[in-house]
Amino acid sequence: MNCENSRDRRLLFLQGNEVCVEAALYAGLGFFAGYPITPSTEIGEQLSKRLPMLGGKFIQMEDEIASMCAIIGASLTGVKAMTATSGPGFSLKQEAIGYAVMAEIPCVIVNVQRTGPSTGLPTGVGQGDVMQSRWGTHGDHAMIVLTASNHQDVFAVTVEAFNLSETFRTPVILLFDEVIGHMREKLVLPEQGEIPLVERLKTSVKEGTNYHPYLPREDGRLPMSDFGGVHRYNVTGLFHDMWGFPTTDPNTAYELLHHLVDKIESASQRIARYNEFFLDDAESVLISYGASARSALHLVESRRAVGERLGLLELQTLWPFPAAIVRERCEHAKYIVVVEMNMGQIAQEVKKAVNDPDRVFLANRFDGNLITHRDIKNILRVIRGGGM
Amino acid sequence: MNCENSRDRRLLFLQGNEVCVEAALYAGLGFFAGYPITPSTEIGEQLSKRLPMLGGKFIQMEDEIASMCAIIGASLTGVKAMTATSGPGFSLKQEAIGYAVMAEIPCVIVNVQRTGPSTGLPTGVGQGDVMQSRWGTHGDHAMIVLTASNHQDVFAVTVEAFNLSETFRTPVILLFDEVIGHMREKLVLPEQGEIPLVERLKTSVKEGTNYHPYLPREDGRLPMSDFGGVHRYNVTGLFHDMWGFPTTDPNTAYELLHHLVDKIESASQRIARYNEFFLDDAESVLISYGASARSALHLVESRRAVGERLGLLELQTLWPFPAAIVRERCEHAKYIVVVEMNMGQIAQEVKKAVNDPDRVFLANRFDGNLITHRDIKNILRVIRGGGM
Amino acid sequence: MNCENSRDRRLLFLQGNEVCVEAALYAGLGFFAGYPITPSTEIGEQLSKRLPMLGGKFIQMEDEIASMCAIIGASLTGVKAMTATSGPGFSLKQEAIGYAVMAEIPCVIVNVQRTGPSTGLPTGVGQGDVMQSRWGTHGDHAMIVLTASNHQDVFAVTVEAFNLSETFRTPVILLFDEVIGHMREKLVLPEQGEIPLVERLKTSVKEGTNYHPYLPREDGRLPMSDFGGVHRYNVTGLFHDMWGFPTTDPNTAYELLHHLVDKIESASQRIARYNEFFLDDAESVLISYGASARSALHLVESRRAVGERLGLLELQTLWPFPAAIVRERCEHAKYIVVVEMNMGQIAQEVKKAVNDPDRVFLANRFDGNLITHRDIKNILRVIRGGGM
Amino acid sequence: MNCENSRDRRLLFLQGNEVCVEAALYAGLGFFAGYPITPSTEIGEQLSKRLPMLGGKFIQMEDEIASMCAIIGASLTGVKAMTATSGPGFSLKQEAIGYAVMAEIPCVIVNVQRTGPSTGLPTGVGQGDVMQSRWGTHGDHAMIVLTASNHQDVFAVTVEAFNLSETFRTPVILLFDEVIGHMREKLVLPEQGEIPLVERLKTSVKEGTNYHPYLPREDGRLPMSDFGGVHRYNVTGLFHDMWGFPTTDPNTAYELLHHLVDKIESASQRIARYNEFFLDDAESVLISYGASARSALHLVESRRAVGERLGLLELQTLWPFPAAIVRERCEHAKYIVVVEMNMGQIAQEVKKAVNDPDRVFLANRFDGNLITHRDIKNILRVIRGGGM
Repeated sequence: MNCENSRDRRLLFLQGNEVCVEAALYAGLGFFAGYPITPSTEIGEQLSKRLPMLGGKFIQMEDEIASMCAIIGASLTGVKAMTATSGPGFSLKQEAIGYAVMAEIPCVIVNVQRTGPSTGLPTGVGQGDVMQSRWGTHGDHAMIVLTASNHQDVFAVTVEAFNLSETFRTPVILLFDEVIGHMREKLVLPEQGEIPLVERLKTSVKEGTNYHPYLPREDGRLPMSDFGGVHRYNVTGLFHDMWGFPTTDPNTAYELLHHLVDKIESASQRIARYNEFFLDDAESVLISYGASARSALHLVESRRAVGERLGLLELQTLWPFPAAIVRERCEHAKYIVVVEMNMGQIAQEVKKAVNDPDRVFLANRFDGNLITHRDIKNILRVIRGGGM
Repeated sequence: MNCENSRDRRLLFLQGNEVCVEAALYAGLGFFAGYPITPSTEIGEQLSKRLPMLGGKFIQMEDEIASMCAIIGASLTGVKAMTATSGPGFSLKQEAIGYAVMAEIPCVIVNVQRTGPSTGLPTGVGQGDVMQSRWGTHGDHAMIVLTASNHQDVFAVTVEAFNLSETFRTPVILLFDEVIGHMREKLVLPEQGEIPLVERLKTSVKEGTNYHPYLPREDGRLPMSDFGGVHRYNVTGLFHDMWGFPTTDPNTAYELLHHLVDKIESASQRIARYNEFFLDDAESVLISYGASARSALHLVESRRAVGERLGLLELQTLWPFPAAIVRERCEHAKYIVVVEMNMGQIAQEVKKAVNDPDRVFLANRFDGNLITHRDIKNILRVIRGGGM
Repeated sequence: MNCENSRDRRLLFLQGNEVCVEAALYAGLGFFAGYPITPSTEIGEQLSKRLPMLGGKFIQMEDEIASMCAIIGASLTGVKAMTATSGPGFSLKQEAIGYAVMAEIPCVIVNVQRTGPSTGLPTGVGQGDVMQSRWGTHGDHAMIVLTASNHQDVFAVTVEAFNLSETFRTPVILLFDEVIGHMREKLVLPEQGEIPLVERLKTSVKEGTNYHPYLPREDGRLPMSDFGGVHRYNVTGLFHDMWGFPTTDPNTAYELLHHLVDKIESASQRIARYNEFFLDDAESVLISYGASARSALHLVESRRAVGERLGLLELQTLWPFPAAIVRERCEHAKYIVVVEMNMGQIAQEVKKAVNDPDRVFLANRFDGNLITHRDIKNILRVIRGGGM
Repeated sequence: MNCENSRDRRLLFLQGNEVCVEAALYAGLGFFAGYPITPSTEIGEQLSKRLPMLGGKFIQMEDEIASMCAIIGASLTGVKAMTATSGPGFSLKQEAIGYAVMAEIPCVIVNVQRTGPSTGLPTGVGQGDVMQSRWGTHGDHAMIVLTASNHQDVFAVTVEAFNLSETFRTPVILLFDEVIGHMREKLVLPEQGEIPLVERLKTSVKEGTNYHPYLPREDGRLPMSDFGGVHRYNVTGLFHDMWGFPTTDPNTAYELLHHLVDKIESASQRIARYNEFFLDDAESVLISYGASARSALHLVESRRAVGERLGLLELQTLWPFPAAIVRERCEHAKYIVVVEMNMGQIAQEVKKAVNDPDRVFLANRFDGNLITHRDIKNILRVIRGGGM
């Protein structure tokens, strides 16, 4: 917190990683476990100071895997839990993330992306983990992944990550990038109550009564009982029945897997967050997210000033991919240009989403530096036949 | 080896996991490190007996990560190295797999898929790791992934995995499944020399001279020098130059990433392995791989017997996805039905590959049991409008 | 009648079979003959109490055939007559139904469908008699068959069945199903006069004058004279002339058969009853009827809530098949999915009705249980390529 | 038998009904039960003399229903059984036919069609029962229905009816018409062995052992044990398990219904019988069956003599409808004209079978007289724009 003495204590000037911290605390974070890794380290560092002061627990664990397991255990006891990492650590956490998916344990995992693959460029920016955030663990399931391009939105999507995590009883990934994490920008801290919070849905089943940890209510939600509390029940990564006991029954397996997928995929409209700029009459539509959306917006605003019909669809929800929104917003576009810092991971999704995928082009950069509005402009010229 | 005393010692009756072992030995496997996990355990078990007898090394490591790291180190010293695992272990290995990609270290990783996500159904079959095998580690790169549906092909693709691994200096994934791994079937053991082997391309640079481990030859291949041998050089997961030394130079990063991707993607025709059955006049084309291709073939053969124009394209190369072959073979098909045991991972690739993706349907099962020819037939009926 | 003492005697909570009874009485039913068969038995049971109190006649006959013959005879004497049965009884009645067609005798036959064929599942639901209701008797003719999916509509179509029966001098089939018959639901009993009633068209020909029972008026209707009353005339199942006397004259046979068919087929627009839900912008149109339309509507409403462009065309008139309405309402649909509890009987008619029949799919269930909104959703997923 | 004294006792001159009798005896008929009805009466009449002489049983029953039930019972004891009727009797038999379908009891039902509906024209010809032969009983199942246009084929399809009945353990309908039944024509009686016969598949299960009457073998066939013999088992029209015991289990119901349908529908290529005349280069293709195919062939032969490119596809298998054959044979036809004696029942199936159904026209007659080659020629002229 850099503005302790400012008149309006709600106006802050922070790094994105610090914004994430403030938002997690706003959402009611009670437990953080992590292992330092650039460019996400400031999240743990800041929480090591802030969380204990607010009655929460901070633990630096021995490694990335232990960090992920710790927040799973903590969450089961009834608190909101988070970890933060970057690419290599995110890869190491995949097995335990799959466990949280299967056991339906709410938690938030922040991945501040650097340039990959492997150790890559620890201090460089990248958006190469988009597909991994969806497909990194084994088996076929669903995932909620959010991102943002500015600090006010970083705050909002971080709170939303906790809300969705509790609503759908599932791990939620916050997929930021190095530029967002380390960039300093203004944040107006929302007042308590300004953003609604979703709290843990506790079971109404009384002590001594049979609690079914995996029996959905009519609305699809599964009330929880704090583990170690008044109810005894089983938690497992195996396919399980409504009591949590392992089963190999094909029907139960089919139903459970569809439950895990459908609770998220069928709510994709509700989970979808996005901003749109100048789309109504746009002949060319840029689609972007995270730090690259900043460059895209810069270009759109400057070209609109000279009358070019350019628009921007900025995605905040990456998974479940908001295909219906993309299709609808791009219906009349002649060119659709996906701006991202990888080899075209979201571009492939956009191609699947729209009619006539030959309209979809990729404007990308993946050398550790932020894609600029000039990079995008150059690519636009080539697309329109104007050459390099 | 069940037929030691048979007249024809080349005719064997084995589990798929044992076939994989025989093929790895045929290909010249020198080192295996692994940690037991169902349904891949027989691979390590068998190698613990066979490999030492042939002068190779077998180590059971303390965990999945150590196993992956051990084969990377062993491979660097000049031997052909392999590990074997299943879903949870495959997730744990992702970080080190990315390292092998970045440091361009040949090795073979077998994933005998079980039903996921998470612990899932350890003894059930699944094909849920197809996307993970491509996207499981962080960053954007490329990957070679092979599979097979019968033991003769298991043998062939296992040898091919070692060959491609050496040719492209890259980890190669063998993505089998529980049914293939545990099913017993006839294998005619190829004679030595019958399948050509690709051996490690050793550098011709002499001792005392500067060896560039990351300087491609004109044909794109990078000769290796056994680590710990006559040359000193650097190996790292960071972006690096031709000496292996870390760099943050954007041009070098750009070139290296394109090298890692292009060496594989631009050879996709050469890497593509597939079988085709009755495709010439097929009105409906099934596309499948692994155990599910057996059920698909069963259906195709039985429906052909009654005159139905049904064909099968069986993929053995899953990544790089053989889009050109799929597009060409499906050009005249009215229905394209992807048969797989997940929620449609290859089906999505097929949709991207073909014109008119509305022709593409999914026939799938993911409850731990093998999809049957009857399951496929039922889905075909629904697709053709005939309902359940 | 469960609400005899309620303040508003018009608000009832009844089984569908009871609703049918109330509607028949509202329409002026004077005679019922039947033989008990699940799941239609409550109709006769209720009428055995109610009909005599209102001056009508109830007879339990010795079998299904006798029941059908009894209502034919009763109707000829000038009263509105009905019978009720289920599949096996409906099969037994076919010969006499054909007689009523040929002799142009108004009557209403209720078939509360159970799961067939044969004895099948007497307490299970089915919609397997749709084609039989059109084609069950020998020879080529036409048939009016109505159904409904909720109790207010059960009431309305039952009254309409009597009206159409009198208007066209023909037997009319009410083709309900077990779920509709046994489900309890609210009914607001219409007041007398709220639904217009069509009464028997009596001849204006005076006693002692030649009455032509089969001489159509200019509007195509054939006035009747109560059999056993002031006129003597012949009634036969043979081809006959305007007096009812048998003939083998080809022209007379040709004219009579065309009269029997055309009086119904050429009025198909007028006879067509249907409901539509969200069709205007529907990308996928469900077509359903009876109990399965309830599940279809459930799905449509829930998917509309999340923005999916799904609509429902609910048919109440099954025969003559409202092909023109189906064609027009489905003109812009990408997918047309017929939801029914058989192997696709109405689906075949829809295929014939629309342009591009490859758009027509079947969502069905025929195992004795009601098709659910989830069943339909799963089939929609397969149709759209999303697999199981 | 009209040619007792002829030199070649194999050359006969018979009514079609008598040919049917000879063929049934050739096939090994052991039991006939029936009730006289024009125009099928000669079948029973002839068998009342011939059958007892050959050691078989003839019973004239009290009515149509009893006749159908009697052959079901007889067949269960192990003999080949048949009944014969016409429209009104066929309607009355529908309920018991459904029982034979459900209980999988081989038997043959002959319907010599007269002009319908109802009593119609007992001595007139008609083909109005085509749809009823498929859909006359309640519930959704499958049916085998054969017909023929000349006496040599009447003989062959009658034997085939018994063969298919035994092969598929199902009732088979022979759908002749009055002209075929009463017309006299030459028949060369095949020698014993000339047409292969399918005999009852008896169970190999020994006395005292559990016999499963509804457990299919690997080839789909269900061996039978003579009822009243060494095994005790249950026979029912209810949904049943492999022992024949009633069940309401949805999976069992689903499997049984699919078994009943698939055993026939999936063998439709094998069941399909047809003749083709001059189809190779036909611009106009007539499709017909039964007596009307005689007129169609007459026209085709006479128009070919003057060079008109007219062909005929004569169907002998009406159900399962040979859609694939119709589609393939009509692929290059400009006009497809279905010639039948009803309002277009097979014409509707042809429209569903072919691409571009606008090519399909109907040439029909339904006044009790045989359609003539002149009737067809007149309709052809109108179709081609030449007017009446």
